[in-house]
Amino acid sequence: MDRYLIQNASLVPVVRDYEVFLSDVLIEKGRISKIAPRIVAEQGVEVIQAQDCFVLPGFIQGHIHLIQTLLRHQADDLELLDWLKNRVWPYEAALDEESAYASAELGLSELISGGTTTICDFGTTHSHQYVMEAVKKSGIRYIGGKTQMDMGEGVPQRLLEKTDKSLQEIEDLGKKWHGACGGRIQYAVTPRFAVSCTEVLLQESAKLARQNHWYLQTHTSENKGEIELVKKITGLQNIHFLHKMGFTGEDTILAHGVHVDSQEMDVLQKTKTRICHCPGSNLKLASGIANIPEMLRRGIPVMLGADGAPCNNRLSIFYEMTLAATIHKVRHGPLTMPAWQVLRMATVEAAKALRLEKEIGTLEVGKKADLVILKRNSLSLYPDGDIASQIVFGAHPQDVHYVFVDGNILLQKGELQVFHQGKIKENSLRAWNQTKKSMKFYQ
Amino acid sequence: MDRYLIQNASLVPVVRDYEVFLSDVLIEKGRISKIAPRIVAEQGVEVIQAQDCFVLPGFIQGHIHLIQTLLRHQADDLELLDWLKNRVWPYEAALDEESAYASAELGLSELISGGTTTICDFGTTHSHQYVMEAVKKSGIRYIGGKTQMDMGEGVPQRLLEKTDKSLQEIEDLGKKWHGACGGRIQYAVTPRFAVSCTEVLLQESAKLARQNHWYLQTHTSENKGEIELVKKITGLQNIHFLHKMGFTGEDTILAHGVHVDSQEMDVLQKTKTRICHCPGSNLKLASGIANIPEMLRRGIPVMLGADGAPCNNRLSIFYEMTLAATIHKVRHGPLTMPAWQVLRMATVEAAKALRLEKEIGTLEVGKKADLVILKRNSLSLYPDGDIASQIVFGAHPQDVHYVFVDGNILLQKGELQVFHQGKIKENSLRAWNQTKKSMKFYQ
Repeated sequence: MDRYLIQNASLVPVVRDYEVFLSDVLIEKGRISKIAPRIVAEQGVEVIQAQDCFVLPGFIQGHIHLIQTLLRHQADDLELLDWLKNRVWPYEAALDEESAYASAELGLSELISGGTTTICDFGTTHSHQYVMEAVKKSGIRYIGGKTQMDMGEGVPQRLLEKTDKSLQEIEDLGKKWHGACGGRIQYAVTPRFAVSCTEVLLQESAKLARQNHWYLQTHTSENKGEIELVKKITGLQNIHFLHKMGFTGEDTILAHGVHVDSQEMDVLQKTKTRICHCPGSNLKLASGIANIPEMLRRGIPVMLGADGAPCNNRLSIFYEMTLAATIHKVRHGPLTMPAWQVLRMATVEAAKALRLEKEIGTLEVGKKADLVILKRNSLSLYPDGDIASQIVFGAHPQDVHYVFVDGNILLQKGELQVFHQGKIKENSLRAWNQTKKSMKFYQ
Repeated sequence: MDRYLIQNASLVPVVRDYEVFLSDVLIEKGRISKIAPRIVAEQGVEVIQAQDCFVLPGFIQGHIHLIQTLLRHQADDLELLDWLKNRVWPYEAALDEESAYASAELGLSELISGGTTTICDFGTTHSHQYVMEAVKKSGIRYIGGKTQMDMGEGVPQRLLEKTDKSLQEIEDLGKKWHGACGGRIQYAVTPRFAVSCTEVLLQESAKLARQNHWYLQTHTSENKGEIELVKKITGLQNIHFLHKMGFTGEDTILAHGVHVDSQEMDVLQKTKTRICHCPGSNLKLASGIANIPEMLRRGIPVMLGADGAPCNNRLSIFYEMTLAATIHKVRHGPLTMPAWQVLRMATVEAAKALRLEKEIGTLEVGKKADLVILKRNSLSLYPDGDIASQIVFGAHPQDVHYVFVDGNILLQKGELQVFHQGKIKENSLRAWNQTKKSMKFYQ
């Protein structure tokens, strides 16, 4: 395995707030082996000059839909349930192996180019092996799985699963992929949401996850219409229902949590369930603004995520950080969620939420070398100022200069080292043009 | 004057929504002289290849503080009045001619690099001639003036003006700069806000503006504390007070308008006063979310602006467009402020608000050549989709490839043609380090 020496960087370990110091970083055997000034470059070590650069832990996004990337800029000005029924589901139903791969390739390329090194991802109900092939090739750290849907109004036939078959498929996928690529890939049982899954599917999926030590994830309380539907079907508030089904706990990531009442918060708090806050998506789909400050006050672990390309439409951690650090101030005051807290939320706190804090989330000797070199390209990073403010309020994806995962270089001087950089755009156009032919909306 | 031929562009004239077509554009004598496919390049015409690029009208930002750019990332997590008293005013008081110029240079460089071709700008109470020198050199289209303050709690001595001297200064500045550079620069009478100006200053300034056909602009109803202060001092709601002072009408731009009641809206509507919406700043300073959909329903002209670097912290029209197209959906529904409306708001509607629609704001033959070539660099512009969605939800400042104002190239292949590209960052650092020495906060 390659050895790298990053020289003269402004190191932001995200171990303590406000900490930044000039240092070199040595990467060996996929891990950070030394952090010190003036490390001597031994033979065989590749030296990377990082003058006027910040070196940070790789960013973690807790909610992504790689499979939806091709539908970007095609599903605007719609609310969640219409957005699903009229655009997203017909699109997902139209995907084949080539387009599933191309969608993941485009999404992964954008995420890596923008400094994201770990994602929690939702697939669709079919073709997930092609997403996994792209993930494997990309080098990104991945927690995710195929979505599951065995009921629901407006679900296209192609997406609707038989309960048994869905359970069998996740068992096969999980056994094949969990722990793959030296542990870089982990499986997450991923029913889409309460509205599209039978109780049997939810309970049996949760059981399977716990037996195999896989993660659990689902969408939760994103939209008022969704909550009403859950209440109508189950007689329960969404979080109470999910709790009954087994979808709470330290191994469970609930995306959104926009509309959660105080009793539901109690459940999340008691069970230490993880929330992924998706401010960009929540604004664009008119979902609402989650009460993240209250969740944080209660000690509920919160991550950030861009969600999918059709509802954001960027997959940029910088955009999500800016939003998270600003949209809550109107309701909760200007001191709410300062830049350092948000920077931690996108790195070390997300690693803790995923129970990976011993391996990733900060820059410390012994940790896996998942890190980002940020070059001060953008004029909005000048003249100076608090490091977290610069990153949260001033940086752009285009400032990302190098990206490492497991000590491998995924991005070098802004150029992707995975996939075929020159072909990604072309592949995405071809696959999208093919896909839309099968969608009624475009006919 | 130079002649340019832009070839094979995807032209987005912003004359009609959804309109985009392949075309060439000829620029002669500072204006768009021809829009047609396959224009023959005559001798002496510089050809610019714009394949896979969008060509758009230059973006207009209705509220900017060039003078504050050096304070970026130094004033976070504060509310308006604290932010002013503890950071912005001490900073503005510490500026000298070099730092005033460097601050404007950094701000202008960022704005131009990000596709903004026209700004409405607020200076500070002194040193405005240095801002104007930078503006002149930059080539940007400019409407603005020095701020005025002849009273107010917490205003540093250096910023506090004598009423007569303030009026004399704006008269001198206006007469010197209004109409300069072939009309590219126009003066705007710019009292900071009701809280820092005597009635005499406001009324006499307004009179001077109207005598000379200058613009008028001020801050308005950004923050609840500000409104309470105005009420306490004047006995009136802010907009009613400003109306009494002469600061309403088709020549008047009021920045923010976050907290405006129904009777105040009536005044804005009747007087056709212009509002500049600054969503990025309003979120970050915890000011609130202006009721822009209601203003639009009433036909009140609305522009977009990034405000100043210390309260945003980017000066990116793309970020402001994304916010404007999303933050209102939570309260007003998913159909509110779709991408095309927001794209118009940043181009043609802003031109109308400034009564410059005969000259700028769309791409049409005869109009001034203020235009932007956007290259599809960002992966978030792929695979495809509605053009306005791509620009509003997917583009970044780094996608801006060329910028023209008055037919002059200000940005070429992403490189600034004005100022000394290699020196801007360095100049800003030197000027900031010098400035902060005179600020108590940094001692």
